[in-house]
Amino acid sequence: MIRSLLFAPGNRPDLLKKFPRCDADAFVIDFEDGTPEPEKPAARRELAAVVSYLREQRLPGLIFVRTNDASSSHTEADIDAALRTDIDGLVIPKLGAVAHLQRFGQALSEAERLGRRRLALIGIIETMAGVMAAAQLAAGDDHLSALSFGGEDFISDIGGRRTADGLEVLYARSQVVLAARAAGLEAIDQVVVDIRDDDQFRRDAAAGRNLGYTGKMCLLPRQVTLANEVFSPTAQEVDRSRRLIDAYDAATAEGRGVTEFEGLMIDPPLLKRARAILAVASRAGRK
Amino acid sequence: MIRSLLFAPGNRPDLLKKFPRCDADAFVIDFEDGTPEPEKPAARRELAAVVSYLREQRLPGLIFVRTNDASSSHTEADIDAALRTDIDGLVIPKLGAVAHLQRFGQALSEAERLGRRRLALIGIIETMAGVMAAAQLAAGDDHLSALSFGGEDFISDIGGRRTADGLEVLYARSQVVLAARAAGLEAIDQVVVDIRDDDQFRRDAAAGRNLGYTGKMCLLPRQVTLANEVFSPTAQEVDRSRRLIDAYDAATAEGRGVTEFEGLMIDPPLLKRARAILAVASRAGRK
Amino acid sequence: MIRSLLFAPGNRPDLLKKFPRCDADAFVIDFEDGTPEPEKPAARRELAAVVSYLREQRLPGLIFVRTNDASSSHTEADIDAALRTDIDGLVIPKLGAVAHLQRFGQALSEAERLGRRRLALIGIIETMAGVMAAAQLAAGDDHLSALSFGGEDFISDIGGRRTADGLEVLYARSQVVLAARAAGLEAIDQVVVDIRDDDQFRRDAAAGRNLGYTGKMCLLPRQVTLANEVFSPTAQEVDRSRRLIDAYDAATAEGRGVTEFEGLMIDPPLLKRARAILAVASRAGRK
Repeated sequence: MIRSLLFAPGNRPDLLKKFPRCDADAFVIDFEDGTPEPEKPAARRELAAVVSYLREQRLPGLIFVRTNDASSSHTEADIDAALRTDIDGLVIPKLGAVAHLQRFGQALSEAERLGRRRLALIGIIETMAGVMAAAQLAAGDDHLSALSFGGEDFISDIGGRRTADGLEVLYARSQVVLAARAAGLEAIDQVVVDIRDDDQFRRDAAAGRNLGYTGKMCLLPRQVTLANEVFSPTAQEVDRSRRLIDAYDAATAEGRGVTEFEGLMIDPPLLKRARAILAVASRAGRK
Repeated sequence: MIRSLLFAPGNRPDLLKKFPRCDADAFVIDFEDGTPEPEKPAARRELAAVVSYLREQRLPGLIFVRTNDASSSHTEADIDAALRTDIDGLVIPKLGAVAHLQRFGQALSEAERLGRRRLALIGIIETMAGVMAAAQLAAGDDHLSALSFGGEDFISDIGGRRTADGLEVLYARSQVVLAARAAGLEAIDQVVVDIRDDDQFRRDAAAGRNLGYTGKMCLLPRQVTLANEVFSPTAQEVDRSRRLIDAYDAATAEGRGVTEFEGLMIDPPLLKRARAILAVASRAGRK
Repeated sequence: MIRSLLFAPGNRPDLLKKFPRCDADAFVIDFEDGTPEPEKPAARRELAAVVSYLREQRLPGLIFVRTNDASSSHTEADIDAALRTDIDGLVIPKLGAVAHLQRFGQALSEAERLGRRRLALIGIIETMAGVMAAAQLAAGDDHLSALSFGGEDFISDIGGRRTADGLEVLYARSQVVLAARAAGLEAIDQVVVDIRDDDQFRRDAAAGRNLGYTGKMCLLPRQVTLANEVFSPTAQEVDRSRRLIDAYDAATAEGRGVTEFEGLMIDPPLLKRARAILAVASRAGRK
């Protein structure tokens, strides 16, 4: 469960090597907008060393690489470079077509056939095409573990303007979270660009959580702390998850195959979600 | 036309027998969430006596039974029990698939072949699957007379949180009313769970009416009074309906087959709606 | 680029002949709601003289005719009369079906085969059917240059009520602008019926611009001035467009076939939009 997804530029090893000081659930080494065009090849060459360093430091969060988007000549080289390192997955910017998503899925499948452990994909929906196709994209490839909504790029694509209350993106933001959650994916909410306004971040994060988002993209460590607060499970959710797992364990110990918990059949998705909530709560508790 | 749809638990004959004291346009005997699991069979057995009592008391509103949802082992028994009594229709909770709706439609069609008068279905859209399929569901079976939106269950299904302004359900609530009204169905809005806050109920009811909802689910008689106020036709609507029916009656008396009213052809749906408005206004006037 | 689309009744030559006093980007001679039923034939007969007069006056904006809607017996005669005059296009009210749009497209194609210059279509989405089919309508005919959203008629069709904040139409208004802009069309926002409230017009225009709308329907010249202000390109947009065109011109002069501008390939749509922005800015500057 990703409450906070922190981005840093792929051409800034100085910043990337600070990831271990931060409590994000997932970290993104950004080859797209974060890395200027002339520096993209060098960033790719340095990736392996950066990832090795982060693994040696036992970075507790997941490590992702954001490749360039479908229209770029860098994308194939980005994927190749990323799959030669020990990352957890790829982030696809400006995801708008199922075929493009499946190109990424195939690259992962090929790597898996060669012995690579399973990787995840996070697709960012931040164009008009992506918003309109959100439901198809959510079901487009088995590697997809989350959809993210990029409000800034979306409003730029449609030619609108961002406001503090966000009504101009409510339709798109609602459509993306619905598509993601209905397909059983995590849903990661938009960035807040005013990096000094903690209140605006908290308000925007709470609005996203109310809509059903499960986490938020972050631009710096300060936002990670706030996102982790807003998206942590409540005491009630933690308690319920613990009781559900206890009921399941008891049933298993007694040899009962199927069990019920407060009127619901305990099926694998329910169990998985309960365990994820406890894992997050355990991380939050260690702080 | 249902301005107010009042729910009471199927295992509480003491409450069900109070229906005649209340002015709801439709009453729901609830076998789903309102009736605890262990008491569901007994509630089914007592249904016939309860419905007979309400008919003897000449309850002016419609009588519905809410069955359990598609995932329950009770649903078939609920339908069978309900169709052996003199009810006006069934309420389907957590409606998310056209096939499930049609299972209800077929049960009604079979009963009609055996001489039963025509019954209505009300489908509650309160899951992510239901919201996404709202347009298909609205056209899914001829017995369907209304779609209802369940904001509480929807936000629980998507993993969000409810707020007073309701922006977190605006997309789903808008999609459901559009699907319902475009298919010519009534649209019944979400409950307000804070049963002591009349202002919140009035605000939420008005917001629903503004969106195009034609009525509201109610949790107790106090809410029925408020819903009837907010969803009653205006004096202007009543006046226009009376003039339309007068124009139609005059044309019929003169042997003219087809007639026009203020630029519109008077077709059966227009006439039906005008009569429904007068019927509701007449009920409201008797109070 | 249409920032302001001013309507006047087709049966009021006195008002139509005042168009040259107003700075709208496009003018609509309205045969639909603006012209009472008994006067529609006479309005059609007078159209040619009105259009000739406006052309003689060198009206700087585009001239459109709004025909009656799909259900009317006037529509064919409206199209015929309009295509015999020197207009720039047709406005289709209550557009709800692709077949209806294509009927208009075919009439234009036939006229073009006979030597008529290419005309444009603007479709107004203002019914439930239109909102639900917005994406298909946006791609329904090559002549379509803009979709417009009619909030008043939409809310009347769905049986809701309009409010100042407009939350009751946010879903429909968002769906229409997304469909239009994703198909590369202009998007023209709803009217404001309170013609004396400039602040309400400005707020509503800004909300539309934030959503991605490119212009607004206007009921009188006062609203045209406000719409032109709100929907004019910013100094930043004008500057960027000028630099893009300069880069393209320099590349062309040097015989380079394809060129890049700030990381984007300069393709025909980008060039066209930049030129349109400069043209609008030039008009705005002349005021």
